Amino acid sequence: MSRPIAVLGGTGPAGMGLALRWARAGETVIIGSRDVGRAQRAAEQIRQRIADNARAGAPSTVARRRSAPDVSGMENSAACACSDLLVLTVPFEGQAALLKQLKGAIRPGSILIDATVPLAASVGGRPSRTLGVWQGSAAQQAAELVPPGVSVVAAFQNVSAEVLNGDDDVECDVIVCGDDAKATAIAMELAAKIPGVRALDGGKLENARIVEQITALLIGLNIRHKGHSGLRVTGLPERAYRAG
Amino acid sequence: MSRPIAVLGGTGPAGMGLALRWARAGETVIIGSRDVGRAQRAAEQIRQRIADNARAGAPSTVARRRSAPDVSGMENSAACACSDLLVLTVPFEGQAALLKQLKGAIRPGSILIDATVPLAASVGGRPSRTLGVWQGSAAQQAAELVPPGVSVVAAFQNVSAEVLNGDDDVECDVIVCGDDAKATAIAMELAAKIPGVRALDGGKLENARIVEQITALLIGLNIRHKGHSGLRVTGLPERAYRAG
Repeated sequence: MSRPIAVLGGTGPAGMGLALRWARAGETVIIGSRDVGRAQRAAEQIRQRIADNARAGAPSTVARRRSAPDVSGMENSAACACSDLLVLTVPFEGQAALLKQLKGAIRPGSILIDATVPLAASVGGRPSRTLGVWQGSAAQQAAELVPPGVSVVAAFQNVSAEVLNGDDDVECDVIVCGDDAKATAIAMELAAKIPGVRALDGGKLENARIVEQITALLIGLNIRHKGHSGLRVTGLPERAYRAG
Repeated sequence: MSRPIAVLGGTGPAGMGLALRWARAGETVIIGSRDVGRAQRAAEQIRQRIADNARAGAPSTVARRRSAPDVSGMENSAACACSDLLVLTVPFEGQAALLKQLKGAIRPGSILIDATVPLAASVGGRPSRTLGVWQGSAAQQAAELVPPGVSVVAAFQNVSAEVLNGDDDVECDVIVCGDDAKATAIAMELAAKIPGVRALDGGKLENARIVEQITALLIGLNIRHKGHSGLRVTGLPERAYRAG
């Protein structure tokens, strides 16, 4: 991609894992945080991690880059000013507040990829349960809160943060839901840059409500069986994994 | 299993497919229907199908049996009298009425495996959307309607009826949810008899609400991409697929 990817709330485990994978793939990544210092430290950590991998002669699953990884850290609104491809990876309890705060910063025409899951843990409940969101899903709540002209796509909710932060291929399909075909295609392209991931067009944004809940099920399975689960969809033709 | 399996509402595509697979595996299967004639014709169809497979020298995925398949057809309440291992495969709009009708027929100590999905198609909506069920899921509704001493387990919602009715391995994990560990174990054992299926302990019955919704997502993917989708859970240890 020629455009930088801004991972908002990117210092958490999911954001760090996605940023690491995209930086390895040669993308320009901006980590956004409320705290610019924290964002910069996170960016440095990822650069260091990739440099260490390169020195250690990492396996082919860990892409070795010729040039230095292009990862920087910024305050969230500065990250929005520098990018029109935004990925939101905050806990549900912080999602609405952050989007309201960024309303003036998100540029018209931007794509916002929302990875938020309304886990009951957000209000002190179990991470294997979800909250009911009035709009139907966290992604639909996001769509209500972004400025006009911004396309919201839901993706990456089911991918294990632990696995993303590792070196192995990610054995998980990313189901992308959105109402703007172009934005869905871009999110699918971004997903496919993560080794092991297959991107799947999951239809309208409203379907995010199911994809988000799958995360709670997977977390329950992780707790019960001590694993880092993901999912693969079977029985679809190859073209289902291509955008458009 | 030494006990017969009664597939209630078993003349529909999902019930027929499960009955076919279990009959092939050598189980004693009773197909239940409101209409005894219809149930008997369905049973005959399955016996015929298995005999044809055997004559055609079917591949190893289609188990060739030495003895004739043991499949019979009965009215639903007669099926309940003959079996304490019940599998419910009716459309959501018929589930509550059937369970109320069978209240006197279901024997105490029975296990009821509910495969019902509350698709919006039940009330004229889309099959890629679900209805909200007051109890949380169709399976939890079933648990409220069975007589005391009957254990309800949720399973088989995500398995494609088309694939079940074919000869190929079923590329789908069956996530079993229930509050009675013994009943969950029996449902897992039953699931594992279907070639290709891996059974997974999905925890409490309340988790059925997520598993049921996955079906709507898979149906949406089938419509969009022209396939017969299923799902595999990745990243769990082998023991997750064993009961207990």
